[in-house]
Amino acid sequence: MELLKQRVREEGRILPGNIVKVDGFLNHRIDTKLMREIAKEFKRRFDTSGVTIVLTAEASGIALATICAEELGVPMIFAKKAKSDNIEGGLYQSDIFSYTYKKKVTLLVSKDWLKSTDKVLIVDDFMANGEAMRGLCDIVRGAGAELVGIGVAVEKGFQHGGDRIREAGINLQSLCIIDQADENGFVFRD
Amino acid sequence: MELLKQRVREEGRILPGNIVKVDGFLNHRIDTKLMREIAKEFKRRFDTSGVTIVLTAEASGIALATICAEELGVPMIFAKKAKSDNIEGGLYQSDIFSYTYKKKVTLLVSKDWLKSTDKVLIVDDFMANGEAMRGLCDIVRGAGAELVGIGVAVEKGFQHGGDRIREAGINLQSLCIIDQADENGFVFRD
Repeated sequence: MELLKQRVREEGRILPGNIVKVDGFLNHRIDTKLMREIAKEFKRRFDTSGVTIVLTAEASGIALATICAEELGVPMIFAKKAKSDNIEGGLYQSDIFSYTYKKKVTLLVSKDWLKSTDKVLIVDDFMANGEAMRGLCDIVRGAGAELVGIGVAVEKGFQHGGDRIREAGINLQSLCIIDQADENGFVFRD
Repeated sequence: MELLKQRVREEGRILPGNIVKVDGFLNHRIDTKLMREIAKEFKRRFDTSGVTIVLTAEASGIALATICAEELGVPMIFAKKAKSDNIEGGLYQSDIFSYTYKKKVTLLVSKDWLKSTDKVLIVDDFMANGEAMRGLCDIVRGAGAELVGIGVAVEKGFQHGGDRIREAGINLQSLCIIDQADENGFVFRD
């Protein structure tokens, strides 16, 4: 998606350790107009006719997933991280390693809201190692629901989380894949 | 807002300790159509003409704040909780007590994205003790920005966080105020 690559090129920053910061429009301050364009692009790329749920993980995926869900006319569910007192009873859960917070976190979705009859589109703003994505796929599998595909706005291709998902035969659509982010700037995958 | 009261009445659950669960449409599975109706109601209730930013706190406020920001044609910022390695440098911060997680958390907003020239509408899905709201107001004050008002979907009136904000002269609009939630069901404030 050229529009997204352009925003990354113009506003993205590269920090030591190949950290890519796109927090001015994607995951701290959110450009809602851009989220709508991304949602429309996902709608073009996936067969969304039967989708019943858009699923993401808290926190930064929620903004994009909300707009996508509204675009498809379905509800959005976000997996919670760790255990809060406000979720009781039956839960789908998956343990993942958060590279951002450098610790294990548990993704949780209430069994009340995800069923075996659901057709799920997973959406996230950003993917690096793909740990959150692996956890979300786990949860869809645990519910016995159908995974239609995975839509990601920005993928750090050089960390290969996305490649592993594609090799597993899942329909992953990343709108901007960064294959290099260092002192020479960004290199995008074609 | 009658539509929202009706949803709380029909789908909300009351757990021991006056805990109100509205996770089927407001803060775990999100009804995006309802979020749009709430956003339109906020637009009617506030003078939003000069608003430049919608501000919320992660995680469950993000869905509603995103739709509100799109409705107003402005970006949305969500305050992060605790410190992640992906936020460096200058931060506005405010310590609050999270009753959900029973511990102190710090709300963080990057100084890059909130300026003294901003006119801010704070939006959240739910308010009980008003701790998150106090933190968000702190951050707006810290930035020297103008607080236009606060829009809340569901307020637990019997915990009085909202009353303290109104007494401070802030324009708080809560679309559904629950004054009682016990074995006799819900009582809403007129």
